[in-house]
Amino acid sequence: MRALQPPSRIAHIAIAVKQINTVMPFYEQVLGLQVERREEITSERVHVAFIPIGDSYLELLEPADDECSIAHFINKKGEGIHHIAFEVMNLQERITHYALHGVPVIGEQIKEGALGMDIAFIHPKAAHNVLVELCQPRGADR
Amino acid sequence: MRALQPPSRIAHIAIAVKQINTVMPFYEQVLGLQVERREEITSERVHVAFIPIGDSYLELLEPADDECSIAHFINKKGEGIHHIAFEVMNLQERITHYALHGVPVIGEQIKEGALGMDIAFIHPKAAHNVLVELCQPRGADR
Repeated sequence: MRALQPPSRIAHIAIAVKQINTVMPFYEQVLGLQVERREEITSERVHVAFIPIGDSYLELLEPADDECSIAHFINKKGEGIHHIAFEVMNLQERITHYALHGVPVIGEQIKEGALGMDIAFIHPKAAHNVLVELCQPRGADR
Repeated sequence: MRALQPPSRIAHIAIAVKQINTVMPFYEQVLGLQVERREEITSERVHVAFIPIGDSYLELLEPADDECSIAHFINKKGEGIHHIAFEVMNLQERITHYALHGVPVIGEQIKEGALGMDIAFIHPKAAHNVLVELCQPRGADR
């Protein structure tokens, strides 16, 4: 596999929580951070709070119902860090490259994510049990 | 609890791995990242590989023996994300402030960490199951 252009930054670290309002005192009062924006991602059935830090974000994910993937994650593993997202260019080219080289991409396609990003997830079996999201500003390479 | 100065950046995301050499093809070839430096932290009995990204690092942690805390983590939960570290100023003032307000700090004291940082860990029970490290360049507030 040829060398790929490196990701430019950690776009976010996603943390699965039962209730955003319950965990906010830790992020606001203990750490001193502030929520910039809240969003509901209906396709993923999650409520999201975005907390900026440096060139990145913490992304708190709260299940919108009991059957979404974040609810299943919390039921199985408890609250905690869910995935890391890296900002890349040429997301489509990467996905094609991965398909050629047997790197498993969940759903095998790019989806629309939050904050105006196109996103895809590399399966954790490729990354030794880390769920990795790749994202790029929507339309950046089309 | 009064408002604290926010952390300036995610200093690193630490990932527990069985063997750094085994996971490097994912970080180097699939993501396109590169190791900047390797270190052995004898006090923690871990080998560490530091991978720069944006204003942060990925920190791969490999147990140096079967009885260190990273080995126990992997035995219990498998490989995966271990903790998030935030860079702060006034680490000692924060630790004192936390003690006054019942925020549990592991070991209740500041230790020497990698990359010339003073570090302390907030217990995951305060952070809804996320292990949070606070770090600052050594000697910055003394």
